[in-house]
Amino acid sequence: MSEDISQVKDALVLFMPSGRRGRFPLGTPVLEAARQLGVYVESVCGGRGICGRCQVSVTEGVFAKHKITSAATHLSPFSDTEARYKAKRGLPEDRRLSCSALIEGDLVIDIPIEAQTNRALVRKRAEARPIPRDPVMQLCYVEVDEPDMEQPLGDADRLVRALEAQWGFVGARCEFRLLPLVQGLLRQGDWKVTVAVHTEGIPTIVSIWPGFHDRLYGIAVDIGSTTIACHLSDMLTGRTVSSTGTANPQIRFGEDLMSRVSYLMMNPDGLPALTTAVRGAIEGLIDKAVNDAGASRDDVLDAVFVGNPIMHHLFLGIDPRELGGAPFALAVSGALTFPAREIGLGVNPGARVYMLPCIAGHVGADAAGAALAEGPQKGKEVTLLVDVGTNAEIVLGNRHRILAASSPTGPAFEGAEISSGQRAAPGAIERVRIDPETLEPKIRVIGLEAWSDEEEFAEKIDQVGVTGICGSGIIEVIGEMFLAGIITQDGVIDGSLAAKSPRIEANGRTFSYLLWRGDQEIRITQNDVRAIQLAKAALYAGVKLLMDRYGCTHVDRIKLAGAFGAHIDTKYAMLIGLIPDCDLKHVSAVGNAAGTGARMCLLNRGHRAEVEDLVTRIEKIETALEPRFQEHFVAAMALPNKIDPFPNLARAVTLPAPKTPLPGEGRGRRGERRRARPDPA
Amino acid sequence: MSEDISQVKDALVLFMPSGRRGRFPLGTPVLEAARQLGVYVESVCGGRGICGRCQVSVTEGVFAKHKITSAATHLSPFSDTEARYKAKRGLPEDRRLSCSALIEGDLVIDIPIEAQTNRALVRKRAEARPIPRDPVMQLCYVEVDEPDMEQPLGDADRLVRALEAQWGFVGARCEFRLLPLVQGLLRQGDWKVTVAVHTEGIPTIVSIWPGFHDRLYGIAVDIGSTTIACHLSDMLTGRTVSSTGTANPQIRFGEDLMSRVSYLMMNPDGLPALTTAVRGAIEGLIDKAVNDAGASRDDVLDAVFVGNPIMHHLFLGIDPRELGGAPFALAVSGALTFPAREIGLGVNPGARVYMLPCIAGHVGADAAGAALAEGPQKGKEVTLLVDVGTNAEIVLGNRHRILAASSPTGPAFEGAEISSGQRAAPGAIERVRIDPETLEPKIRVIGLEAWSDEEEFAEKIDQVGVTGICGSGIIEVIGEMFLAGIITQDGVIDGSLAAKSPRIEANGRTFSYLLWRGDQEIRITQNDVRAIQLAKAALYAGVKLLMDRYGCTHVDRIKLAGAFGAHIDTKYAMLIGLIPDCDLKHVSAVGNAAGTGARMCLLNRGHRAEVEDLVTRIEKIETALEPRFQEHFVAAMALPNKIDPFPNLARAVTLPAPKTPLPGEGRGRRGERRRARPDPA
Repeated sequence: MSEDISQVKDALVLFMPSGRRGRFPLGTPVLEAARQLGVYVESVCGGRGICGRCQVSVTEGVFAKHKITSAATHLSPFSDTEARYKAKRGLPEDRRLSCSALIEGDLVIDIPIEAQTNRALVRKRAEARPIPRDPVMQLCYVEVDEPDMEQPLGDADRLVRALEAQWGFVGARCEFRLLPLVQGLLRQGDWKVTVAVHTEGIPTIVSIWPGFHDRLYGIAVDIGSTTIACHLSDMLTGRTVSSTGTANPQIRFGEDLMSRVSYLMMNPDGLPALTTAVRGAIEGLIDKAVNDAGASRDDVLDAVFVGNPIMHHLFLGIDPRELGGAPFALAVSGALTFPAREIGLGVNPGARVYMLPCIAGHVGADAAGAALAEGPQKGKEVTLLVDVGTNAEIVLGNRHRILAASSPTGPAFEGAEISSGQRAAPGAIERVRIDPETLEPKIRVIGLEAWSDEEEFAEKIDQVGVTGICGSGIIEVIGEMFLAGIITQDGVIDGSLAAKSPRIEANGRTFSYLLWRGDQEIRITQNDVRAIQLAKAALYAGVKLLMDRYGCTHVDRIKLAGAFGAHIDTKYAMLIGLIPDCDLKHVSAVGNAAGTGARMCLLNRGHRAEVEDLVTRIEKIETALEPRFQEHFVAAMALPNKIDPFPNLARAVTLPAPKTPLPGEGRGRRGERRRARPDPA
Repeated sequence: MSEDISQVKDALVLFMPSGRRGRFPLGTPVLEAARQLGVYVESVCGGRGICGRCQVSVTEGVFAKHKITSAATHLSPFSDTEARYKAKRGLPEDRRLSCSALIEGDLVIDIPIEAQTNRALVRKRAEARPIPRDPVMQLCYVEVDEPDMEQPLGDADRLVRALEAQWGFVGARCEFRLLPLVQGLLRQGDWKVTVAVHTEGIPTIVSIWPGFHDRLYGIAVDIGSTTIACHLSDMLTGRTVSSTGTANPQIRFGEDLMSRVSYLMMNPDGLPALTTAVRGAIEGLIDKAVNDAGASRDDVLDAVFVGNPIMHHLFLGIDPRELGGAPFALAVSGALTFPAREIGLGVNPGARVYMLPCIAGHVGADAAGAALAEGPQKGKEVTLLVDVGTNAEIVLGNRHRILAASSPTGPAFEGAEISSGQRAAPGAIERVRIDPETLEPKIRVIGLEAWSDEEEFAEKIDQVGVTGICGSGIIEVIGEMFLAGIITQDGVIDGSLAAKSPRIEANGRTFSYLLWRGDQEIRITQNDVRAIQLAKAALYAGVKLLMDRYGCTHVDRIKLAGAFGAHIDTKYAMLIGLIPDCDLKHVSAVGNAAGTGARMCLLNRGHRAEVEDLVTRIEKIETALEPRFQEHFVAAMALPNKIDPFPNLARAVTLPAPKTPLPGEGRGRRGERRRARPDPA
């Protein structure tokens, strides 16, 4: 593509934002220079000025650091090709087509993050982040020679040869399935076609459209035990054009993962039903996602999936029963690439599926995706990444060493096993404050901004109702009950307080706290507190095992992934000892990190290599095998912990003094409220 | 596998029949030495002394040329492994297991052509020839580590890792389809399994059996327009264990290729019916072949197909209508490898299909296979390879240059378009002699050894009948009529002979020759002679075009491939001018060369590379584009030819002198019979 301008001066070109630079002979097309430096610039038409995907702009000025004086005039004049494109499809003033603009002097070239297509509906999502694009699936416009009796190559062979010559592929081939279609499509497109090429391994033509075609989509799916989320990405811009989610219909076979495995143990022929259920839900999501974006299923050419090991297996039609007991053997752990039609996915028949690798029998592709997205393995700081679900996946470490484990927290954090627990939905209590003097609570429910002591609440609560308490609400009410002295460090509801407040009620030998009185009475029972204690102790013990193995006593940073992590107040999570002590400024919710990891693998082949390498580097800890797990678990039953200090927490919150109730008697002395340990500040 | 015996003397080992030799440290297993030299020795168990496939023997003696004194004692003593194998399965006295026998001195090692399995039924066929084995599909016995929670690799990943470690593969993978089966099979085999590995490109596990499995079959299929032949090979011995054939059921859509293309032009939706018909016939052949050999369809892991371009396309489900007219564009010409399940072939679901490449729009994978088998491109002599069917495929050349074309001979040689023509079957006249004085014929029919003037014929002919005349019979009767002066050099039946013999009968303005009078009268009409003239002239003109292009006026050797070639008397073929003049000693029938080419590609990967390279080297001549075709055709209408001399033929046969009949009048002067040219001998 580059013209022959030997003997001529060259120019220094810097590409932003990558910062890659190099010298190129004058007359080199900017696109060609970018390719030589490995800077990804989209192009569907291969430099014919048709697709307009390869737009760039010149950043003018003197860049002393790089010894570059950049000017728009250092590009060749606006070409006829660019003028034609601009007239037909429009082109902003500062933009050039990099296939057409030639380097004629030193330049700083800016590659816009977003390509210039305006028709796609764009939705902003919390987890949306720009991901540098280098997808394995690529659209290539190809002009094919007509048949020649003297050189009787087959039409498909000539197509492959043209693709190789015009796009620089070596050893390309055409998917067998397409052979019966090639002749018709070539003739229909007057010997010009656009092909989708799967560029991993042997470059393979997986789809053909007559003429010019520039729509290419991919989906990234996070298959959770409870919910499934699907993001549709425009592969030519990198934008997430629609996002949809649904409940995992496998719930009817068992709320949590192990109950689904149990179902299979009782119903050995039940595997197809479970697989069909999850695949069906995904089909529904794809339908909705493409409809929302005004796209077509046939333009979906790549699909990336993450999920925990059991969902991973069930989705692939693999019996997960081996995961139900030691040694928790995965059928397959490595990353997988296979044709989407192998699992009957209703997208383009040439589409490929990429499954992220699983880390271990209990630590799945979702944890691998979250680690990829959040990168604890990249920094110097010791980072704890936790994805709380019915199984909590825990990744801990830094660039030197990285460990992972899972811990069976059970479904308490999702509202199950809690007397008034419910999923996060309108009407669910999500925020709680308890006055330590009066023990009177105020609440906030999902669907209503106001607190219950505000006028607006009384006005509007009938529209929403107070129906139960969701995961983040449970964390908060337990934390507030602890702060108010209603429960002791050991998690016992202090029955002696019944004398002080009618909200403390006796139920046989234990007590409960009446959080809400309305159409429905919502109590926090002793059993509820115990369920949360068991769940948080399991998670914390897992974290501690990793910290032991790593050899650290504190972590620098905590990232809470997943929907649960996004909604809880991290202060309360620390207060009840769900996570270890840490500067609260460095504790954050990171949203659906697993889904973000999936999107990264969808859009960039480098991230696939990265996550595949990462899982081999991760040290896997099987919590069930660790003798110290029980010890950590017992200490972690206390609030926040029987043994571990929480100095950072103590700086942010006035922790109650330990008090010793008499649970057998159901009564205790009201504890003095003092700081658990002196504030070192 | 080789032991560490550094610092020790090495020995010179010569492998026969390959002749490869090398020096190896004492203590090297013979199998390992063979592998290092690239000498193919079968082994399923990977050197564990289980499979017994790696047997070799020592050729003792002094080999001065190689400076080797070889003795059986230069191998390590008979091992316990070998003793165990011998006790269990038997081992001839002179045989050793090469995985167990270590090199302890200079040796000449003989690799037996046939591995030592005795259970397979072996059928001898004319086209059976030993083919050195190096198949792309390989059985590998693998011992897999059990799951380990500390190293939580998936079962499939551990299987792949064990395969790589124990068999030396790099970057292997397991077919997606097998993932749901891996765990069960590994446990069923107590962590020992045999896998079939497709070793072309990425080494891929395509089938898994628990424990030790040593049955592996492949099929080679020649899809002819008229008949389909299928050979089942034991891939571990290279033996053809059964061969079956059937009529191509597509005949109901059209006798010849072009009529099937016409059918599709009239019935554009008819493609699936044609494809289903041919695939169904092949399924039937596979059934019969595996039943005859006592094999199982599930043990068939590889399949090679050849066919002319139209059969190639129809078999693959590709519309062949583009092949019906210029520029005769093939949908695909290159060799293809794809999973057998893509076309629903009822063999092991992991089996692969290999299609030989097509040479041009009219010169198919069958011609490529025939060229591979007969190797005209290998010798110094100019060789003409002709496969006569409704299209004749013609390959001409030598090691310096090789050309190919096809010529539309039509179905006359197969008995169609001939008034009493029929397929080769009992009752068909296949041999004819005509007394030049009396013009009385004698005949022989298929199914009866005796000539019609022998007593036995009269006794037995009622059992067989005389039902028509087959292809080889037509060639012979036309040749004999020419020799007897009944037809002129121009192919006109000489009506003046009606005066001499009642067998010459007038039919309107032309005459016919009564060949047989019985329940059915069999005549050779003027139209019959014309049909054969047209067919043979088309073939000869094609040959001449290739000779022109090559720049030769005679050929050194002629090979006639296919069933027709196997049955005709080459002398008569030359007499009527079907093939050019050549020393008759160097004209031979080579049987189903296309099928042999398919078997070669089935058993040896090297032959696949060879035929793929060959087709790129072949110069393709499109006869329809050559202006001289018509000229050659007209000259070739004469018997044997108007212009070309036939000196070799003239030495073998007394050719009649040209005579000039009066076709318009239907009468002529009886020609003098003299030699066409003086015998130079």
